Amino acid sequence: MTIEPGPETDTTGIRAVLDDRAGAHRAKDAERFVSHYAPDIVSFDLAPPLAESGSAVLGPDGWDAWYQTWRAGPDVQFTQLSIAAEGDLAYSYSLNRLRGTKTDGTTIDLWFRATLAFRRTDGIWKIVHEHNSTPFYMDGSDRAAVDLQP
Amino acid sequence: MTIEPGPETDTTGIRAVLDDRAGAHRAKDAERFVSHYAPDIVSFDLAPPLAESGSAVLGPDGWDAWYQTWRAGPDVQFTQLSIAAEGDLAYSYSLNRLRGTKTDGTTIDLWFRATLAFRRTDGIWKIVHEHNSTPFYMDGSDRAAVDLQP
Repeated sequence: MTIEPGPETDTTGIRAVLDDRAGAHRAKDAERFVSHYAPDIVSFDLAPPLAESGSAVLGPDGWDAWYQTWRAGPDVQFTQLSIAAEGDLAYSYSLNRLRGTKTDGTTIDLWFRATLAFRRTDGIWKIVHEHNSTPFYMDGSDRAAVDLQP
Repeated sequence: MTIEPGPETDTTGIRAVLDDRAGAHRAKDAERFVSHYAPDIVSFDLAPPLAESGSAVLGPDGWDAWYQTWRAGPDVQFTQLSIAAEGDLAYSYSLNRLRGTKTDGTTIDLWFRATLAFRRTDGIWKIVHEHNSTPFYMDGSDRAAVDLQP
């Protein structure tokens, strides 16, 4: 399938946030990564729980600990990115590829879906909601579909 | 955790769409359910593939077939719903509970995360993006976390 690009209204700042987050991952820079979250961020992430907010998302310590589990990477690529913005509200969605090698030698190559919502305050776009996921197989196994490609 | 309500800007129409979708599920009314999608809907749903668009989402036949797998339900409840809107763009997110009994007697009681993006055209809000998911356990099992509660 092909995702059509969204309306191109004032999306330069959004794209810059996305690119800087990817750079923060590559640099294993947790402070830089969390700097793009708004204080009231509500995150639905790949791992449990269902939802997290506040210091569980905003604190760099958890991200630092996660970065330390990677020998190479993490590298995140965005594909089929769609961004829409109006006034000080925006959202984006994309299919992302997470790659790298964990410290135990495990190779990661995971495609996942990413949806973000943004609010602009004093001219700066911050992420107020993040939703990352894979689907799961409804064949009785309830196995997460971590082996899909677009 | 508690999700704080979003800014209350023109969200009545959004809420009406969400409520009518829940009603369509209860009534097993596929035409009514898909009527809330925009033609360019891009859906990231609970089951594979990663993404679907066009007739795979908009066609009522797939939804009809899904409804026929339920003896009782499906019933969807929204909790911790947050809605934000500006101009003709909006998004919502919530933790949803899907319940019912399948025709084979299986009882379903599944909590999942839901994020929606909306665009208003000619005064009518339509869903342009939908993202439903559960997280998955990163304990080596890659098992979908279908047993979580908020």
